[in-house]
Amino acid sequence: MTKATDSSEIPDGTEPTQHDGVHRRQFLSTAAWVGLTGAGVAAGLASCGKQPPGPGTAAPAAADAGAAHSAEIKPGQLDEYYGVWSGGHSGEVRVLGIPSSREIKRIPVFNIDPMSGWGITNESRAVIGTLPDGRLKYTTGDTHHVHGSYSDGTYDGRYFWVNDKIHGRLGRIRGDLLECDRITELPNIQGFHGIFPDKRDPVDPAINRTTRVFCGGEFTLPLPNDGGNMDDTTQYYSMFTCVDAETMEVRWQCKIDGNMDLVATSYDGKLAASNQYNTENGMVYGEMMSAERDACIFFDIARIEQAVKDGKVFTIPGSDTPVVDGTRASNADPKTALVAYVPIPKNPHGVNASPDGKYFICSGKLSPTASVIELAKVLEWFEGNLKDPRDAVVAEPEIGLGPLHTAFDGRGHAFTTLFLDSQVVKWNIEAAIAAFKGDKNAKVVVDRIDVHYQPGHLNASMSETRECDGVYLAIGCKFSKDRYLPVGPLHPENEVLIDISGEKMVTLHEAPVYPEPHDFIIVKRDAVKTTQVRNIDDFPLATKDMGGSRIERDGSKVTVHLTAIAPAFGLPEIRVRQGDEVTLIVTNLDKVEDLSHGFAIPKYNINFIVNPQEAKSVTFIAEKPGVYWAYCTHFCHALHLEMRSRLVVERSA
Amino acid sequence: MTKATDSSEIPDGTEPTQHDGVHRRQFLSTAAWVGLTGAGVAAGLASCGKQPPGPGTAAPAAADAGAAHSAEIKPGQLDEYYGVWSGGHSGEVRVLGIPSSREIKRIPVFNIDPMSGWGITNESRAVIGTLPDGRLKYTTGDTHHVHGSYSDGTYDGRYFWVNDKIHGRLGRIRGDLLECDRITELPNIQGFHGIFPDKRDPVDPAINRTTRVFCGGEFTLPLPNDGGNMDDTTQYYSMFTCVDAETMEVRWQCKIDGNMDLVATSYDGKLAASNQYNTENGMVYGEMMSAERDACIFFDIARIEQAVKDGKVFTIPGSDTPVVDGTRASNADPKTALVAYVPIPKNPHGVNASPDGKYFICSGKLSPTASVIELAKVLEWFEGNLKDPRDAVVAEPEIGLGPLHTAFDGRGHAFTTLFLDSQVVKWNIEAAIAAFKGDKNAKVVVDRIDVHYQPGHLNASMSETRECDGVYLAIGCKFSKDRYLPVGPLHPENEVLIDISGEKMVTLHEAPVYPEPHDFIIVKRDAVKTTQVRNIDDFPLATKDMGGSRIERDGSKVTVHLTAIAPAFGLPEIRVRQGDEVTLIVTNLDKVEDLSHGFAIPKYNINFIVNPQEAKSVTFIAEKPGVYWAYCTHFCHALHLEMRSRLVVERSA
Repeated sequence: MTKATDSSEIPDGTEPTQHDGVHRRQFLSTAAWVGLTGAGVAAGLASCGKQPPGPGTAAPAAADAGAAHSAEIKPGQLDEYYGVWSGGHSGEVRVLGIPSSREIKRIPVFNIDPMSGWGITNESRAVIGTLPDGRLKYTTGDTHHVHGSYSDGTYDGRYFWVNDKIHGRLGRIRGDLLECDRITELPNIQGFHGIFPDKRDPVDPAINRTTRVFCGGEFTLPLPNDGGNMDDTTQYYSMFTCVDAETMEVRWQCKIDGNMDLVATSYDGKLAASNQYNTENGMVYGEMMSAERDACIFFDIARIEQAVKDGKVFTIPGSDTPVVDGTRASNADPKTALVAYVPIPKNPHGVNASPDGKYFICSGKLSPTASVIELAKVLEWFEGNLKDPRDAVVAEPEIGLGPLHTAFDGRGHAFTTLFLDSQVVKWNIEAAIAAFKGDKNAKVVVDRIDVHYQPGHLNASMSETRECDGVYLAIGCKFSKDRYLPVGPLHPENEVLIDISGEKMVTLHEAPVYPEPHDFIIVKRDAVKTTQVRNIDDFPLATKDMGGSRIERDGSKVTVHLTAIAPAFGLPEIRVRQGDEVTLIVTNLDKVEDLSHGFAIPKYNINFIVNPQEAKSVTFIAEKPGVYWAYCTHFCHALHLEMRSRLVVERSA
Repeated sequence: MTKATDSSEIPDGTEPTQHDGVHRRQFLSTAAWVGLTGAGVAAGLASCGKQPPGPGTAAPAAADAGAAHSAEIKPGQLDEYYGVWSGGHSGEVRVLGIPSSREIKRIPVFNIDPMSGWGITNESRAVIGTLPDGRLKYTTGDTHHVHGSYSDGTYDGRYFWVNDKIHGRLGRIRGDLLECDRITELPNIQGFHGIFPDKRDPVDPAINRTTRVFCGGEFTLPLPNDGGNMDDTTQYYSMFTCVDAETMEVRWQCKIDGNMDLVATSYDGKLAASNQYNTENGMVYGEMMSAERDACIFFDIARIEQAVKDGKVFTIPGSDTPVVDGTRASNADPKTALVAYVPIPKNPHGVNASPDGKYFICSGKLSPTASVIELAKVLEWFEGNLKDPRDAVVAEPEIGLGPLHTAFDGRGHAFTTLFLDSQVVKWNIEAAIAAFKGDKNAKVVVDRIDVHYQPGHLNASMSETRECDGVYLAIGCKFSKDRYLPVGPLHPENEVLIDISGEKMVTLHEAPVYPEPHDFIIVKRDAVKTTQVRNIDDFPLATKDMGGSRIERDGSKVTVHLTAIAPAFGLPEIRVRQGDEVTLIVTNLDKVEDLSHGFAIPKYNINFIVNPQEAKSVTFIAEKPGVYWAYCTHFCHALHLEMRSRLVVERSA
């Protein structure tokens, strides 16, 4: 272990360790600092006594000496964990193997994927949603957070959910298929940021699994947002939304003052929370950071649902979702309050539940602190037994600059990303509580490690569950700068994998990733049970026998039932007339795992794949006469190139 | 070295090596065999005396003992090579670091990318092409082959080209930006399969760089394909197309009998070639494999261009591209022939130029052979000095089952993928020539290695250049089956990296990849020189100073000039009227590398990024009244979340 060379710069005076023998300050982003200073917000950080660093220099290779684990998975070996990764404004979700950090799958959700046919097949278009003229309603999306369904406080592998910030949608991914099966657009919100499934029913203790998904709205809006009041911004609000985990229908919304960001839920099911960085309801960033304290808002789920049951709701024109009033004015009495506003220093970003079920950690972003909120005390407030909701904060250690998100190791430690410091700090929660009570000997910060550069989210293996195991920690770094071969103006982001099994953190691996992975979870591999070959009976449109290929005509509507079995489609020729509306249903009759077929029609902008024992369909107007060689695009066989069907479109008279 | 345990199964009787102590036959795909047998083509392989293997079992980890190189690139270290990777029917191109096999960038080309805004911005839509109603003409594509521009026989980093098989388009990627800048749709073709840039001018020896790109059409068509003759398939032809490397305009086409597939070019610029698997012009796969020999077609570029110059051309109705006649009947006299049809065994797939400039290797696919064609002899034929074009074949070793593509190490060895054997075979070209001449002691096959599973393309570092260096070999395996954690019905493909620097091949790494990477090149890193920060003067629409943000109205057409500098857009509010046609131009005034901004408008389906010192635009109709919080989607700053602009759409009267 090397002694710190810059310990004077560490806010709490604990001794950090240099893992690579280079001053970490040399790596700090000048961009973030210059921008921050230029924007006039340096004063917000002045209490830390920090100065902008000099120009950045490249970091040498991190040493992984001392690691108990390795990121190397040899050919043919399997990874230990599934990583389920948000794809940011790529609109997709990604599945990684951890620790190798290799991307095993992309799951198209809000994007259009010409490979799988997501957004092209009739089935996927129904999930995404279409306009009256047949075009897709949206083709963009901004995924932020991925979380899984729970049973008994840990992942059960049934579902994963992901949000679309741009258009306010919640997507669901089936755990057995790792495919999106439902998308719900939330009413009355914009900037849908945080999501979290509940972990237990707040009322019925027999239901110890996820039945709801909670959604935080980030941008305040006039309600309704129909072009009526747009100028009186004091009447802008945001909504906390509850979606049914099974039906994916919106159950209720709660209108609040200010905005929301991330979401966390308690293991007992009673509380959900969201950090609030814009208590001020500011319209520009200067206003948004004017208050010294913002809040973490807690929702008493049972009370809200009782209020909905009791009809204490209203609706926003244009939506029939029941809405309860969660504004400060209507929730002043703790004994009837639906929500509690717990004050938290300056523009907090991130709220995370500790795996012991006791605390939520909410970080300050523009304050160098992480606030530890004791859930028992929040419940006390709701019972009228805690005078000030701020008293639920049981620790608030200064941990570094730009603290954002927190993960856990299940051994009492928290790991928080420090955006401005380009570090992860490991700290002890109980020590922070002791220090907050006045124990001057409490050693809060245990370790620090440089990451490259500007980390946002992080997550540790099983960190969001009762089975939190403290093995691997992944860090989503927003800037990669000089870490990879240059690839032009658009840089990759950098995902760093750290071994957290020992006292010291050890960097194992860095992986460049297409922007912009936002958040992720690391799930033990036996929690995810996938199906590789579907049951053909699940596809009502399927043609179940090789001889069943046929063309059916009803006026100008033509239905083509086409089987695929390597290396041939069931019809060598498909003959239609110009102007026909053609619905083409392709059934893959191969039963062998991994033997997917593709189906493309040149000049008709059609391509999609059909996995073994699946059926998928497309509908198009045969507007162009001529010969169009439909072909298999997904390598299936030695004679794959020869697997074609000739679409003959006869000229209309 | 371990002795082979199953040498009796090796066609040429050389001694293979087991790298992992397990019978490679156990890994063979039963799927491919069963499919092949079921389709009645087993007879085509009967000469090899092979039987379908038993059920597949999982392979253990390959050992990398004995490797001179490693795939591990420690954090902060840079890869040695750029891998430029086709994305198959994802429609994109990918940039990898080699040897780590980490994906550093995706380059959207034929797909729509909501992250970068490819297909969303006006600039990208102009490259892709739109229909009269404003929709994009195509949103799908099937990239197959990526090749780079040459100077002096090696990569010069100016351009990379990639084809779209579905819609017959050629995309060009700027090497300095690693972004697509041009897409050209080829006339009179379908199933555009192979591409290759030329390496030298065939006439002017002073021009020793790429000036043309050659394109092979795979599917034969009636010409014109307008719904006229569709039934007389004897009148179906395919086209070999020459595109100008700089202007990206089609120079000429050559009509041929049968079809084409891959393309290769000679180092002297005189010859281009394409393998032909459907000499029969069959319409179904049974017909396509009826002949025992197909062909490798050679094009005499200088003669073709002289014919074009001399006006010995015709046109196909609907296109003004000059077409020369390359059919067999018109090219019987070698001294005037534009093309030579060199007979090659059964359904060849793949044609590759050896780095010494002497040979093209064309593999049999349904024959266990690779044919070595000596280019000097092809030129002799064109001069009338070789009686039979078949005499240009100077070797035809039996190397294994399902031979497809060949790479080189610059030390006289060829590496060919064996699709059915799931192997790569290393063989000696000069030994094969000696054996073909009758030398019974010539040791052709040097080594074999199992890959998992069913390899298609492969390529070695700098293999396609005079600087072929024989360090790394990448193999694109079409099936991954059990190599990764299961992810549902759609499996990844498997990219295997092999150290070829020694006598024996050694597997270094396996990487799962989103389907379906088709082909790739491995380029030494100093050949690619990228620009990370653009010159703002290259963007005529840019607003060059922070105070220049403004809104201009011309009737119902509104132009918004919006600057972005972290953490704010130049206008906190953008006020327009319902029904306005809004053109929004975003200029990123940040100058710091990696500091890209995003711009999303909720409910308006808009998202794109703008890199430092760039300007991009979108145009949309403000049809929905209300407040829409445009926000930065690309993490830029500690106050990134606060970086927003309020789009206020006033109700129309």
